[in-house]
Amino acid sequence: MSKYGSVKKAVLAYSGGLDTSIILKWLIEEYGCEVVAFSADLGQGEELDHIPQKAKDTGAVACHILDLREEFVRDFVFPMFRANAIYEGRYFLGTSIARPLIAKAQMEIAAKEGADAVSHGATGKGNDQVRFELGYYHFDPSVKVIAPWREWDLNSRSALEAYAKKHGIPIPTSKKFPWSSDRNLLHISFEGDVLEDPWAEAPEEMYLLTRRPEDAPDQPEYLEIEFEKGDAVAVNGERLSPAALLEKLNAYGYEHGIGRLDLLENRYVGMKSRGVYETPGGTILEEAHRGVEQITMDREVMNLRDSLIPRYAAMVYNGYWFSPEREALQTLIDETQQTVNGVARVKLYKGHCRVVGRKSDTHSLFNPEFATFEADEVYNQADAEGFIKLNALRLRIRSMMNKGKAG
Amino acid sequence: MSKYGSVKKAVLAYSGGLDTSIILKWLIEEYGCEVVAFSADLGQGEELDHIPQKAKDTGAVACHILDLREEFVRDFVFPMFRANAIYEGRYFLGTSIARPLIAKAQMEIAAKEGADAVSHGATGKGNDQVRFELGYYHFDPSVKVIAPWREWDLNSRSALEAYAKKHGIPIPTSKKFPWSSDRNLLHISFEGDVLEDPWAEAPEEMYLLTRRPEDAPDQPEYLEIEFEKGDAVAVNGERLSPAALLEKLNAYGYEHGIGRLDLLENRYVGMKSRGVYETPGGTILEEAHRGVEQITMDREVMNLRDSLIPRYAAMVYNGYWFSPEREALQTLIDETQQTVNGVARVKLYKGHCRVVGRKSDTHSLFNPEFATFEADEVYNQADAEGFIKLNALRLRIRSMMNKGKAG
Amino acid sequence: MSKYGSVKKAVLAYSGGLDTSIILKWLIEEYGCEVVAFSADLGQGEELDHIPQKAKDTGAVACHILDLREEFVRDFVFPMFRANAIYEGRYFLGTSIARPLIAKAQMEIAAKEGADAVSHGATGKGNDQVRFELGYYHFDPSVKVIAPWREWDLNSRSALEAYAKKHGIPIPTSKKFPWSSDRNLLHISFEGDVLEDPWAEAPEEMYLLTRRPEDAPDQPEYLEIEFEKGDAVAVNGERLSPAALLEKLNAYGYEHGIGRLDLLENRYVGMKSRGVYETPGGTILEEAHRGVEQITMDREVMNLRDSLIPRYAAMVYNGYWFSPEREALQTLIDETQQTVNGVARVKLYKGHCRVVGRKSDTHSLFNPEFATFEADEVYNQADAEGFIKLNALRLRIRSMMNKGKAG
Amino acid sequence: MSKYGSVKKAVLAYSGGLDTSIILKWLIEEYGCEVVAFSADLGQGEELDHIPQKAKDTGAVACHILDLREEFVRDFVFPMFRANAIYEGRYFLGTSIARPLIAKAQMEIAAKEGADAVSHGATGKGNDQVRFELGYYHFDPSVKVIAPWREWDLNSRSALEAYAKKHGIPIPTSKKFPWSSDRNLLHISFEGDVLEDPWAEAPEEMYLLTRRPEDAPDQPEYLEIEFEKGDAVAVNGERLSPAALLEKLNAYGYEHGIGRLDLLENRYVGMKSRGVYETPGGTILEEAHRGVEQITMDREVMNLRDSLIPRYAAMVYNGYWFSPEREALQTLIDETQQTVNGVARVKLYKGHCRVVGRKSDTHSLFNPEFATFEADEVYNQADAEGFIKLNALRLRIRSMMNKGKAG
Repeated sequence: MSKYGSVKKAVLAYSGGLDTSIILKWLIEEYGCEVVAFSADLGQGEELDHIPQKAKDTGAVACHILDLREEFVRDFVFPMFRANAIYEGRYFLGTSIARPLIAKAQMEIAAKEGADAVSHGATGKGNDQVRFELGYYHFDPSVKVIAPWREWDLNSRSALEAYAKKHGIPIPTSKKFPWSSDRNLLHISFEGDVLEDPWAEAPEEMYLLTRRPEDAPDQPEYLEIEFEKGDAVAVNGERLSPAALLEKLNAYGYEHGIGRLDLLENRYVGMKSRGVYETPGGTILEEAHRGVEQITMDREVMNLRDSLIPRYAAMVYNGYWFSPEREALQTLIDETQQTVNGVARVKLYKGHCRVVGRKSDTHSLFNPEFATFEADEVYNQADAEGFIKLNALRLRIRSMMNKGKAG
Repeated sequence: MSKYGSVKKAVLAYSGGLDTSIILKWLIEEYGCEVVAFSADLGQGEELDHIPQKAKDTGAVACHILDLREEFVRDFVFPMFRANAIYEGRYFLGTSIARPLIAKAQMEIAAKEGADAVSHGATGKGNDQVRFELGYYHFDPSVKVIAPWREWDLNSRSALEAYAKKHGIPIPTSKKFPWSSDRNLLHISFEGDVLEDPWAEAPEEMYLLTRRPEDAPDQPEYLEIEFEKGDAVAVNGERLSPAALLEKLNAYGYEHGIGRLDLLENRYVGMKSRGVYETPGGTILEEAHRGVEQITMDREVMNLRDSLIPRYAAMVYNGYWFSPEREALQTLIDETQQTVNGVARVKLYKGHCRVVGRKSDTHSLFNPEFATFEADEVYNQADAEGFIKLNALRLRIRSMMNKGKAG
Repeated sequence: MSKYGSVKKAVLAYSGGLDTSIILKWLIEEYGCEVVAFSADLGQGEELDHIPQKAKDTGAVACHILDLREEFVRDFVFPMFRANAIYEGRYFLGTSIARPLIAKAQMEIAAKEGADAVSHGATGKGNDQVRFELGYYHFDPSVKVIAPWREWDLNSRSALEAYAKKHGIPIPTSKKFPWSSDRNLLHISFEGDVLEDPWAEAPEEMYLLTRRPEDAPDQPEYLEIEFEKGDAVAVNGERLSPAALLEKLNAYGYEHGIGRLDLLENRYVGMKSRGVYETPGGTILEEAHRGVEQITMDREVMNLRDSLIPRYAAMVYNGYWFSPEREALQTLIDETQQTVNGVARVKLYKGHCRVVGRKSDTHSLFNPEFATFEADEVYNQADAEGFIKLNALRLRIRSMMNKGKAG
Repeated sequence: MSKYGSVKKAVLAYSGGLDTSIILKWLIEEYGCEVVAFSADLGQGEELDHIPQKAKDTGAVACHILDLREEFVRDFVFPMFRANAIYEGRYFLGTSIARPLIAKAQMEIAAKEGADAVSHGATGKGNDQVRFELGYYHFDPSVKVIAPWREWDLNSRSALEAYAKKHGIPIPTSKKFPWSSDRNLLHISFEGDVLEDPWAEAPEEMYLLTRRPEDAPDQPEYLEIEFEKGDAVAVNGERLSPAALLEKLNAYGYEHGIGRLDLLENRYVGMKSRGVYETPGGTILEEAHRGVEQITMDREVMNLRDSLIPRYAAMVYNGYWFSPEREALQTLIDETQQTVNGVARVKLYKGHCRVVGRKSDTHSLFNPEFATFEADEVYNQADAEGFIKLNALRLRIRSMMNKGKAG
């Protein structure tokens, strides 16, 4: 079945780079459809002003540029950080959490533009294709999804460049780095090239969002981060919007070289893959969040929540942001955060940060006096005997049974 | 009922310090029993040679000194680190894991000595009483446990000193620090005094096992740590016994100021409590262990294991080391570690450490070629479409149902 | 310290029976306090009219009778059934779920009456003392709790009867049955006496809420039970209040001998205990609820929820209804129930019931057509290949690694 | 790329029926390969003697018939029943557990025969294709898998029959029933046809392995089932091999109409599907197993295990029997079963069964005396006060905090 004519109008997640420019042209050639370009500002630190012209030059019938930074942090990053979500014990999910928002915005444009298809530049070997497409299908279960990397035969750099040359797409004279990366307000990721040897240390020039710890200030710096219902709302007393707050933490993280991660992780598509990440502000945020939780969160609530983190993180990593299971789990997470109101004091120094103080005027569950006077009112040491005796009972009965058998 | 005469011989966990010296005397006076002192070397860094004389001077009929360092690391620390056990997201359980071993050794002495009671110096407000006593009951469900802090009326420093003076127990002229601490090969903990204000930073002079990060070397240092079935066996190519290995890592951790933690945690007895910890070698160990797991452990195994960490950690923290549930969970943990064979390369620098490389000659599940050629054999990008389509199916059906209702 | 005078006014959970009558008197004698009696109708099937007179005759200064049946089913039974909570794989928690409500009502009366203490008749060996007291403390963390069974020396039947005789409390001429029981709208429980031999079958005359299955009708009967957001709202088309609905299901359950359970269970206080239960309506309710969930609930949501049932059930069994962890988990449960709208058809016959049909006009996720035509739109069989290939990838890589080692 | 010649020899899971006969012929025609037929006796109750001749008549170069009944029950059914595995709260996984064994045996034949491909008759819409193929890949990660239903265009009954007629394959004159089914020693499943209306009750003539409960004996019958390390070993004192034991329980289950299930379940491939199941012996087995666990299994072990059942069951249902995660979980399950030694007494009556007694000479953790005398030794009622007080502490502190805020 010929693809040509099977689609009328496609919305493409477009970056202005070589690959998505080729895709833009390829969609027109291969599907004979109109293409609407779409770029979102999630804090990737690039100028997007030139993109509309570029898209139109390559053949797009329209181009939408959206600033999604506040929505990104408020509705995606913050809910995820309420959960302390960490994938495989280490990864703060900076790329994973951006994809659903791009998919959402892209589908809104598709609806507005009356498009019947959407397309993206993610390859067939990675997680991002899954995250994009599960998002697309959530908003329109019958949308046509075009994933050129899974369809075309442009499977080498030279084939791509030949295609670009043939269609008059300008080829950047030199790619700055041989590895690939993805950046937004939460993080930057790197993969490929020298990283493919998991034993070799990542080169220093790779890092963009963090100084080399050795070059960080010789003096520690302290931050006070305030939380309301689990979300950070102020830094050193300055109240900030979600995106502005994360930007501010990123600046501190950069300065002190905080948030580098070198990880060999398991992709959803079944293979292991080496990634290097910088999450400067996010790393500080998680540490501070844990600090406020320490003083405001009940023990059993924390244990329950912690036991669900791997599952929550896998949902986000695998692309199931818009899923009933993530939504159900989020209600629990959000409920646990109602009391997470307070301030953490965090010390930043040469590549790491740690909580050194925490307080809560309204929701502190800590009272040093339980450990000293007022014993008669709330804590009677003698109670501990009964507590231990009854907790030991099943273990004692088991020991008796074991002895009985041995005897 | 009078206590006097109710017990014939008690084994006391004895440190030689003021408190347990008073307890030794008090047991003799109050219970009219013989007291056997027992001290174990778990790497607390104190000379134990003088203890037998001291114990006998205070009235003990015998004193046992045991070097348990290898057993401690091999049979307690290492199994726990196979699980990557961390309590409340941060604490490496250094005190928790020592108590069951002390209880075990104490009960062995009780059996040998024909004692009918055991005693310890833990207070009625903490976790340690639980950890000791659950251990005692495991080995002898009908042993008599004497916890003087829950019984006596010596509830102030001055009452204790008066009792000591009255019974000729020497009172140290000055306690070095006003806070209390517990040390072994894995860590040192601090609590009390200035720490009772959870907002105040712990004073620098508190730290013993780690240099101030600011004073650590200006150059990073690299370690290569080798693992077999999840246990570290060599550092920089030098094969070491468990205790020797942990000591070596402690030395590196000290030098680079690694492993400090300031935590407000939830005690098993129901209150929050602020603790400061130094776990220099353990912090490096966990990081390196994760590194080798990254390259050798299956994705779903890791997710399953990670989801059980909070439960495992709570078992250890709460004192349930000798329990059927910990043992059952350990079999799963140990099974997951059969493939964890390889080497991690860790970078140490001014207060933190991170994995920068990992390899496994025998159990690597990483192959960069899955991401490049050999596509036809193992990975076909087109397969991803079916993978996504079927994973999306339930979400699409749900979206259709939602739209149908809205429509 | 003398108890006398330490309490001014106590509210007692009072049944009018011998034990709580003795407690009423004992409180007056022992504590020198005023006693307010309190009885709640939770559907235990006993006349409560005579209770106030009896309480006053025994010395109570006041007596409160409350009909809590609707609140019981609506706010306690139904939320728990939304979770499909089952303890140790079998028990529907009929006693466990009633205690928190009694505690709540009792504490409201204590507040109204200005009482400074509460008391109950649960023994020191069971779960109920925990459930009552955790409830009391939730509503007033400084309330004085008096648990006579843990305090007094009336530890035999004859001691109790002697005390009753001495204080003019009428002793029922004959107790009907030698075992003890607890009944409410959800269930009746039995324990003690002949049940203490776990190998011996419970006698037929024990059962009260279910006919002997052998005596049930020879013809099966069908019920249609409708659910809204996980709660049953109608039976055979008749819309009923929560309590009326449960009563109706109880009647059906009685008729067909449904809901008997013989269980050896683990008490929270550490021992095993044998209980026999009848939960006629609840058994039907759970079966029907599962039926509607089958057609309306997402797969991953169900898996997540099911994995949390043992934890939820333990919370209820152990008395943590009024706890932040149960409340957090309930938000997740309730979120999963938003789509559970539909009707189940259940077949009742001689001791059991099972779903034989289910439908949902608004939230069905079942469409047989996905399995037949419309293949091109929603399901393409060829997609399954990619789905399997990618799901198999990590397993194949592992097999290759294993073979490589062997080779 | 032509398929013809791409494969040299394929082993086909062959039943002798129309569909796999057509597949046999189609493989020869389409792939130009030799085909080896393979049939396994898993207790499907059909004569397999005629199969080799039939296979050869249709063109097979060889045919292997294996009796796998003992292996099936011993190494697949029993390990799964040790886990009390139940999918979506109801399904005993009778089909799911058979597929991995078929895949294993088929791959052994492939190895013996030097075959380079395997094939099966499962459709592209079901779970069985996944279960087969994950099994195949486990044993040989580079085996070629041919799934004709995902490849060919014989997508209707008439196309199949035309193909059969053209190739001289005999077409059964009448299929007995319009629904499809799968049977083995553990169960029979039904799906399709009239079951596609989830509201309509399954017809009585569908059931094969259970009598109509109405036709079951009017008198209950009792069985005593003995377990060793979680596996059933004897019925009414008669020691039996695993397969013989399950057959015996099936006979009892048949007689009393036990083990019918009507379920709308979630397939791994993303859709809901209605199935009717009969698991007569398995239903009795699970009930009895729970009975022995009640008296021999520790509370926390049971809670841990129960919380992992949904995950274990999903692994089996989805086809991950031969996976590292199932194997890791199995080690935990098997460890929990070391003490599960004893006898359950089960009452069978008209469609259901329930435990009415249980005992264990060697591993009972039940002792009614803990509830009566010996109080001083093992259980002191006064201990309960301390137990409750300390368990209540965090809840009381929370209440104080809440009141403080309100005040």
